[in-house]
Amino acid sequence: MHVLVLGAAAGGGYPQWNCNCSLCLGYRTGSITASSRTQSSIAISSDGERWLLCNASPDIRSQLAANPELHPRRIPRDSGISGVVLMDAQIDHVTGLLSLREGCPFDVWCTPNVHQDLSSGFPLFPMLAHWGGLNWQAIDIDKGRQETSFEIPACPGLLITAVALTSNAPPYSPRRGSPTPGDNIGLLIEDRARQTRLFYAPGLGQLDDRVRGFLRQADCVLVDGTVWHDDELSRAGVGTSTGTDMGHLALSGPGGLLEELSALPQATRRVLIHINNTNPILNEHSPERASLDAAGIEVAFDGMRLEI
Amino acid sequence: MHVLVLGAAAGGGYPQWNCNCSLCLGYRTGSITASSRTQSSIAISSDGERWLLCNASPDIRSQLAANPELHPRRIPRDSGISGVVLMDAQIDHVTGLLSLREGCPFDVWCTPNVHQDLSSGFPLFPMLAHWGGLNWQAIDIDKGRQETSFEIPACPGLLITAVALTSNAPPYSPRRGSPTPGDNIGLLIEDRARQTRLFYAPGLGQLDDRVRGFLRQADCVLVDGTVWHDDELSRAGVGTSTGTDMGHLALSGPGGLLEELSALPQATRRVLIHINNTNPILNEHSPERASLDAAGIEVAFDGMRLEI
Repeated sequence: MHVLVLGAAAGGGYPQWNCNCSLCLGYRTGSITASSRTQSSIAISSDGERWLLCNASPDIRSQLAANPELHPRRIPRDSGISGVVLMDAQIDHVTGLLSLREGCPFDVWCTPNVHQDLSSGFPLFPMLAHWGGLNWQAIDIDKGRQETSFEIPACPGLLITAVALTSNAPPYSPRRGSPTPGDNIGLLIEDRARQTRLFYAPGLGQLDDRVRGFLRQADCVLVDGTVWHDDELSRAGVGTSTGTDMGHLALSGPGGLLEELSALPQATRRVLIHINNTNPILNEHSPERASLDAAGIEVAFDGMRLEI
Repeated sequence: MHVLVLGAAAGGGYPQWNCNCSLCLGYRTGSITASSRTQSSIAISSDGERWLLCNASPDIRSQLAANPELHPRRIPRDSGISGVVLMDAQIDHVTGLLSLREGCPFDVWCTPNVHQDLSSGFPLFPMLAHWGGLNWQAIDIDKGRQETSFEIPACPGLLITAVALTSNAPPYSPRRGSPTPGDNIGLLIEDRARQTRLFYAPGLGQLDDRVRGFLRQADCVLVDGTVWHDDELSRAGVGTSTGTDMGHLALSGPGGLLEELSALPQATRRVLIHINNTNPILNEHSPERASLDAAGIEVAFDGMRLEI
């Protein structure tokens, strides 16, 4: 399958508009080697023609412009995007739907939890009804198995398994602080013809054996690289929230995501995405980045293409 | 006063993500000479340090990144934006507030009509309360004079007169189709020290002698260049809405905006903004653009700087 990384940063992007932490300032002054990154989103296709958009970031307009695969082909209006699936109802993953309003109606796959938040706290579904609407396609997570599989007819050749993850619900959700299954999902996406699998989870607050089982099945994991240290926002002097508060497992330390990734089968391609502007791995010459290189772990960047 | 044109296009930007009209396709293939444009927004400052943002477009992240005047100076977090004023409650003028959430709380000037729409149909005020909130500063249009003047302490040296304009309310407003004064405003902005004036109105559905009086007072008018022909969307085969439906007076023809601009005092600098992707003036070699050149009317572009 073909994967386009449209954006590889966490909410706010890199550099963040109002941030002068050493990494943001270093980028602007050119004192460090780093690439700017827009907010996380990917597109996936089996045939290279019909693309499934995973999350619609606030940066979607520049992301679509930067990726010719997604440009319109037919006259007068068209798009390479054949469907949208949402991992959660967070601003940095859904706001871009507003910028797709000229293409309404189109299909949006999300869980009932996400649909509820996007019908109330951040009412994208009722708002966009004025432009032709979004066709909600429910992702009904099985309560027992905490997963469900489905196909998207407009994006043929892909079998998608949505996996309930433990993270958090957005601040405007009634479930903020006490999320339930369906507030956050990861995706195991299988290319049926090639028999290859991607596991995509830009937010991964916690791993258990059920989730580890999905990572182990994948030929490539594209997962949560938000923070290096759980307390790195306060270390950088830019905030008090921890990675845990935001629903993201830190990369470093005992029980961290790097330890989890090192336990995967050797052939698994390991790529980090959803990188926060405070994460030292953005600096390509940092010791943290060197340790990733040594472990064979890649850092996604805008415009990265994965063939799986 | 200093004016930064952050974005010069109408909603959707240019080229528009899903549009293959001759202008969008021509841009992508390079067959015409034209510059891409993000969605309309400007920043104004008297001292070049403290900037008033006029509208917060969905493209705000890339717009702030592209304009060093607006980058943070102090450590750890900061911004050149000292306040925000909204012309209306349309998606392409307000969505960017979501991308400023890391800077909350900050002051937002808008009318009670706009505040109502942004507290209900598109609830940015309640949403952003979760990040520290927006401090609403009411622009109370005088019912009789249909204008009001105010200063913004954080952006010293500017006297701002908000002028009620006849346009439309957004689709998610209860006043859609029957707007009342305050759904759309223009701004006459005076630099007190220099005694110079800008009139800014990206949406101008209709002119009367009251509004003409404001245009005549200005040293520079930066106004609605959305469409050349009222019916140009249907001519291009991309829609059925007219300029009038969308609250924009067409440039050409009897009673059009060009006729109005030609009646201004000769010294007035005339600049068009909020250009729709279907407007032939985007093609720098079009006859329509040549007629603007002949009339001394400029077309705003992203990154344009005006000194008034």
